Parts: sequence; structure tokens; C-alpha cells
Amino acid sequence: MPMSSSNAERIPNLADIEAAYQRIHQDIRTTPVLSDPELNKKLGCELWLKFENLQVTGSFKIRGATNAVKRLAELGQSGDIATHSSGNHGAALARAARLAGRKSWVVMPENSVKSKVESVRQQGGEVIFCAATQKAREQGLEKLIEQGCIAIPPYDHADIICGQGTAAFELNQQCPHADIFLTPVGGGGLISGTSIAAKALLPGVKVIGAEPEGAADTALSLKLGKRVDEYTVDTIADGLRALVGKLNFEIIQANVDQVVTMNEASIIDAMALIWKHFRVLAEPSSATVLAAIVESPQIFAGKRVAAIISGGNVDLNHLPFTTS
Amino acid sequence: MPMSSSNAERIPNLADIEAAYQRIHQDIRTTPVLSDPELNKKLGCELWLKFENLQVTGSFKIRGATNAVKRLAELGQSGDIATHSSGNHGAALARAARLAGRKSWVVMPENSVKSKVESVRQQGGEVIFCAATQKAREQGLEKLIEQGCIAIPPYDHADIICGQGTAAFELNQQCPHADIFLTPVGGGGLISGTSIAAKALLPGVKVIGAEPEGAADTALSLKLGKRVDEYTVDTIADGLRALVGKLNFEIIQANVDQVVTMNEASIIDAMALIWKHFRVLAEPSSATVLAAIVESPQIFAGKRVAAIISGGNVDLNHLPFTTS
Repeated sequence: MPMSSSNAERIPNLADIEAAYQRIHQDIRTTPVLSDPELNKKLGCELWLKFENLQVTGSFKIRGATNAVKRLAELGQSGDIATHSSGNHGAALARAARLAGRKSWVVMPENSVKSKVESVRQQGGEVIFCAATQKAREQGLEKLIEQGCIAIPPYDHADIICGQGTAAFELNQQCPHADIFLTPVGGGGLISGTSIAAKALLPGVKVIGAEPEGAADTALSLKLGKRVDEYTVDTIADGLRALVGKLNFEIIQANVDQVVTMNEASIIDAMALIWKHFRVLAEPSSATVLAAIVESPQIFAGKRVAAIISGGNVDLNHLPFTTS
Repeated sequence: MPMSSSNAERIPNLADIEAAYQRIHQDIRTTPVLSDPELNKKLGCELWLKFENLQVTGSFKIRGATNAVKRLAELGQSGDIATHSSGNHGAALARAARLAGRKSWVVMPENSVKSKVESVRQQGGEVIFCAATQKAREQGLEKLIEQGCIAIPPYDHADIICGQGTAAFELNQQCPHADIFLTPVGGGGLISGTSIAAKALLPGVKVIGAEPEGAADTALSLKLGKRVDEYTVDTIADGLRALVGKLNFEIIQANVDQVVTMNEASIIDAMALIWKHFRVLAEPSSATVLAAIVESPQIFAGKRVAAIISGGNVDLNHLPFTTS
């Protein structure tokens, strides 16, 4: 697959992430980081949450998308942009493309959350539906590439990884001296970027991923010592249904200390807990970080934990929990 | 009604608000302030929103409640605490009381939002239901006072006003050089505190209130030049159903440049717009600030507007708008 830049396969470093931050920080929001003493008492650790649901397009994905699209101009590459996405990367890429004056095409699984499809369209992206499998997504994208589009994949790309790493770069300033950085794991864009930034900035820090049992291909890949490329996913966390990327897995193997899994009920309970303590609707993918702490408290006990709430793109009319 | 301190009826000044800030800032969150260029383009002004929905207990009310309860200790007054509230002040006061080791009683109208009743109870407050009228609320509170409770009313009290004014004090640091400060108007605690802080900090700043047409007693009172004390309210903005307080109205008359009203459909549309641009569920009372700009754009055109999203305590299962 022709990637957008020659360094797409090179493992990035902190300097690359800092350069990405300089490239994108005026196009994104510095999202807030909050903690709640009462929640901390329940959890037995000091949890700081970075609310990327408040980010432009409702998730951290705008960081990587903006970085990758801006890099194209620096490299002198013109043309339409294409990707596949369960939604958040699609909306982010559509916005980044629109601001750069480019047309964008987004291949989306037909079971995508409706509000995420709408978000892509509102940002000016053209949606092309496909079957809900990794293979169908990739085939859909191949077709667009054959038609001359530049592919910017959702996670398996150095420019995307660097963009996503800017969230941890900010978080380290907002919550210094963390013992643990904790993010959800889907395709691995956020955790790989986070791990590069955190390990370079904070010697001794642990980087931990949160992955639903129903999409635990990364945990399995780490156990087997090689990337699993077939896995039947079944989880409410729609943003984490993609399999871990190649470059992402290489970085995760090198940098990530542990991937913790949790069941579906814990994810839903964690959504309700975040609503209760912060009045934030975290999407299920995001709630995995809190679910990880609730299910595996011994890993986090007494630690200062800096975690990323990755997005807030939920269908308000189909919430999996109730308020009373 | 025996108030909690001798200065309950004195009009506070900026020094009082700064003292309140020192008193409470470690018990509350510094809530984030965000702006969205795309929303600003639609609105024709530069809007900065302070998200007090992310505040402890889900609204700004914890500021006034914490200030008032901490003042009691300074004044050597012990005993149970009581109030009447449609919900946000109740939950806030229950938390402040609990942290101070006091019992609290909250008189709530029987049509209160269910999640707000739950919040009061979760914070350790005892709920006493009454009819949904101002008179019934006040009678309920009188009874508790007769039983020996110290009343901390929701807005008509100098310590409450000073506490609420700390939000504008913070906002002025987070969004300097605003042309206009804009807040919802219910009982008038937030707008009166805001007006004192803003006018003292920023010579020439305008302070504007947003009030639903269905609860426009403050707009009417300003027009008549005297406080209206009977008014049949009918609005979705449950946090703004109370009539403006006496001390609050005195301050509003002196400091507030204008109170803008808006219809119910605009409030609901504004809730959806805030969700779309920030992935924040503002309660209807809060959405009035955006509705005010949409309905009366000429007042805000080209201005830098610092507005307060007062709370996010909504029933997720009964939202008045849909996401697609």
C-alpha cells in the first residue's frame, strides 16, 4: 500500500512527537485534565483523566489526522485523501482534509455507530460502507487507492502515531510525575504514541493498555510474541474493534509494560461511573481505562495514574446505562 | 429568616469574592474554558465557554455552598444545615455539609429532575419533597429552621453570591479581556456574583444575563424597576425556575447591563449545538447562554464573550433532543 511519506514505517521518537505538537497545536484544543478525590478513594489510586472527548471532532483522532495531512503538504503530495475507520478517525481525517482544501473518502463498516457516520459527513467526508470485517475495510481502501487517493490509515503509520503521541506530551505537562500512563488499545495508534512520549519523558514510568476481552488481539499477540492478524471481535467498544497495526505492535512490544483486559459489564459500569463523577459521557472505548483499574486494582494501587479518555462520540439515544 | 451570618444582607465586593476563592479553591475544580472556531464562525462572535458541568457535583453551585458552609465554622455556628433547591444547590450543599461533618436537609419541589434528587441523596442529604411553588419551598424551609436548622438559601445570601462569583474570577484569568460576561439567570446567585467580579476586574465590560421567556421574572422586574415576587414559571430549564432573590436583584439592578430572553425551542437547539461542538451535555439552564446569542446576535456581534455553562445534571434517559 503506497503510504503518504517515506518515513511511514520508521519508528518515531520523542523529537518526532514534539515536531507533531508544533505542527498541530493551533488546530486542536488543549483538553482538560481532572481528578476526583472521591473517585480516587474508591479506586485506591490517584487517577487523572485527560478528556479528549472535549477535543475537536470529539476524540484524540484529530491529532494524528491533522499531523498526517499537514505532513502531506510539507512533502509536496497533492490529491484526495482516503481511509477506513469505525468513525472517529474518519471524522478527524475529513476535518483535517477540509481545512487543507482536500476531498476525503472514508470506508466505514456498515454497523458503525450512526452518530459517527453523521460526524464524518458533517466534516465534509464521503462515506463508503463495507462489511464489518477487517478484510472488507482494507479492500474498500485499496479500491480508493487504485483510483488515485492518498491513503492515510487510522493507526498503522508513523505520522498518525506521532500525532496521537501529542496527547501524552500535553498530559505529562498537565499531570507531572505520573507513575503509570494508561490508554485504551484498539489499532494501537494512541498507546504506541503515548508509550514513545511517556518512556522518553519519564524514566521509570509504566505504560499500560486497556483492551476489552472481546477485542483482546493485542493482549493475545503479546502473549504469543507475534501479531495476530485474524481475530473475531465482539465488544461494545466500537472504537477498539480494529486489530492492532504492524508498526503499532512493534512499538507496543518494545514499550508497553502490560495490556489489561476487562469484560463488557465493567466497561458499561465504568461509563456510568465517569458520568457520575465528572458529568462526562465517555464512549465505551474510553471507559476501558477506568474499567481496567476497577478490574485489576492491584496494578494501580497507590499510584499516580495519567489516563486518556479517548473520545465521547456516543449515540445519546442508545446509551447502555441509565442515570437512576 | 435567621441567616447564617451578620453580613448576609450586605452587598459583597471583589475582595469578598477573592476571599471566597481562597476559602474554597482546594475543595473545587478549576473547570476548563474552551472555544470552537467553527461555532464562532456561525455565531459571529468569539465565544469562550467555562464548563461548570465538569465541576464537583456537576454545577457551579458547589462554589457558593462550600463558601457558605465554611463561613459557618469561621463564625462559630454549629448545627444541621437546611435549604430549598430544584437540585443543584441541594447536592452542592449536601456535599459541603458532609465534608464539614454536618447533617443536611433539602426541600425539593416534587417535579424535580430525578437525577438531581439522586445526587442530593448520594451526597448524604435528606430530601423533603414539597409542591412545585416558591411558597411551598419557603414554607418547607421555615419548618426546618423552626426545628433548629441553619438555613443556607440557594442564592439570596452574600456568602452564596461570593462563592458563585469565584467562577467569573477564574474565567477572567482563563479568558482575559472579555467584552461581555454572560450567564444564565435563575435566582440570580451566579449572575450577581459574576457581575461584581467582572465589573471590578474589567472596567467597561458588559454583563448580560440569559433567562427563558417562561421564567422571565428578572427581565420583567428590571423593566418595572422593582422585584416581581409572583410569577408562574414554565420552562424546561429546571435550574432557572426560581424567582430572583432580593439581594440578587439589588445587585443585578446596579451591575447587569441587560437580561436577554429566549424561547424553549432555542434552548433545546442550543443543547444540541453544545453537544455537537463540544461533546458536552449542558443542562437546559446552561444552554440559555448559547440560545441568547443565537436569538440576539446583534448584541454579541464581533465581541469576545465569556460565558458560563452552569451545570450538566440532566436525565440521560429523557433528553429533549436526538443525536441524528
